[in-house]
Amino acid sequence: MTTDTIAKEVAVSFEVGGKVCKLGGIAKGSGMIHPNLATMLVFLTTDCAISAEMLQAALSGDIQNTFNMVSIDGDTSTNDMVALMANGMAGNREITEKNDDFKVFAQALNTVTVQLCRMIAGDGEGATKLLECTVSGADSMQVAKTVAKSVICSSLLKAAMFGADANWGRVLCAIGYSGADVDVTKVDVAFRSAKGSISVCKNGAGIPFSEENAKEILLEKEIEILISVGSGTYSASAWGCDLTYDYVKINGDYRT
Amino acid sequence: MTTDTIAKEVAVSFEVGGKVCKLGGIAKGSGMIHPNLATMLVFLTTDCAISAEMLQAALSGDIQNTFNMVSIDGDTSTNDMVALMANGMAGNREITEKNDDFKVFAQALNTVTVQLCRMIAGDGEGATKLLECTVSGADSMQVAKTVAKSVICSSLLKAAMFGADANWGRVLCAIGYSGADVDVTKVDVAFRSAKGSISVCKNGAGIPFSEENAKEILLEKEIEILISVGSGTYSASAWGCDLTYDYVKINGDYRT
Repeated sequence: MTTDTIAKEVAVSFEVGGKVCKLGGIAKGSGMIHPNLATMLVFLTTDCAISAEMLQAALSGDIQNTFNMVSIDGDTSTNDMVALMANGMAGNREITEKNDDFKVFAQALNTVTVQLCRMIAGDGEGATKLLECTVSGADSMQVAKTVAKSVICSSLLKAAMFGADANWGRVLCAIGYSGADVDVTKVDVAFRSAKGSISVCKNGAGIPFSEENAKEILLEKEIEILISVGSGTYSASAWGCDLTYDYVKINGDYRT
Repeated sequence: MTTDTIAKEVAVSFEVGGKVCKLGGIAKGSGMIHPNLATMLVFLTTDCAISAEMLQAALSGDIQNTFNMVSIDGDTSTNDMVALMANGMAGNREITEKNDDFKVFAQALNTVTVQLCRMIAGDGEGATKLLECTVSGADSMQVAKTVAKSVICSSLLKAAMFGADANWGRVLCAIGYSGADVDVTKVDVAFRSAKGSISVCKNGAGIPFSEENAKEILLEKEIEILISVGSGTYSASAWGCDLTYDYVKINGDYRT
């Protein structure tokens, strides 16, 4: 049985040494998603010529910032999987070291994996919205990732997003309990969607904003939660979804 | 505003050096509850004569196994608080060291705090059931607590409990992703309530059981999830509640 509601597929083209390479991926999964490569399945294929070692290096480096930054329900599955296969049929010079070609490949891979992450999160069990939390200005990558993951995992914030409520207090709360070393007096929070963006918190304190405008922004299907935590140079994103009646129905009321 | 639906109060009597002492507590809180003494408020009072140092020692030791083992939604509040006050009016000889009197006091304290934890968890936002997960046979207290807390925090298991489904696979999954060093081939799982108990997993594998009987047990208001992880001597309990439509309503749909 699957609760996926959309086919999750994406592909890109890129050039290595004058040869056009392609990289595509498909993913499956909508519940029990909080990968720690750990019922998410992802298959990535490419015709790029690249050594097994470099293929593994590209994938291992990528998933820390992509699939491991997705959470639908906080429940890590027993059998998540990401497979990346390359057959070299693009005819490019084989990538065997971390050179500029490798960077091009890694960037192409990241474009595909981020899109798959967004598809998985947006199709979370019962979800009505894709949430993307981007933390910038952090002093380290670990701080940026810890904060982003904590916010995206908060049941309270997920429920507020379902209700289209710009409840920035719940964002700050999740930052606080994440344990990350963050100066709350330097934290800014904004919400953004196709309907525009709205700042709701500046230097750790609430600022006046139009509730009506905020609601219009938050009624969209894709919501960005933008958090700046200072003047550092690190940033990270995490992906999740809102917590809805249908999540409870799918996981609690399926027998009745 | 509070979403508490019951008054949470409990008191006990105990004897120190021939004098009867009393210890009582009141608690407030039903959402944003995942204390890490971190909107839970608990006030405990006693007339026992006990030094400030011993009072702090008793409380600090206790909360690690009580309030810090409660989770309603995984969201640690910014302002949880437990206060314990003693006025010495019981007239007992003052407790100033970790002697037998201290043990009696600590036991009385634990009786009160465990009851308050159960009241808080059972009155969780939207909850229809109190869940108590007890892990035994662990090689260390840390393993027992990590497993109990992981299981009680699982959104998937919380939703299954709402649906009265003996979904032991979700229990095993939460044990697995807890990171605790547990041999899955030694894990037994049973559910228990006022209607009896039922074993559902033995040595890490499902065993045949009556779904009808399991449902009858799980339709009760207080459910114990009993997990044995081996032949160690440590055990720990954690308290939580089911994940329901009303949790989403209270935290997501309050404006509409």
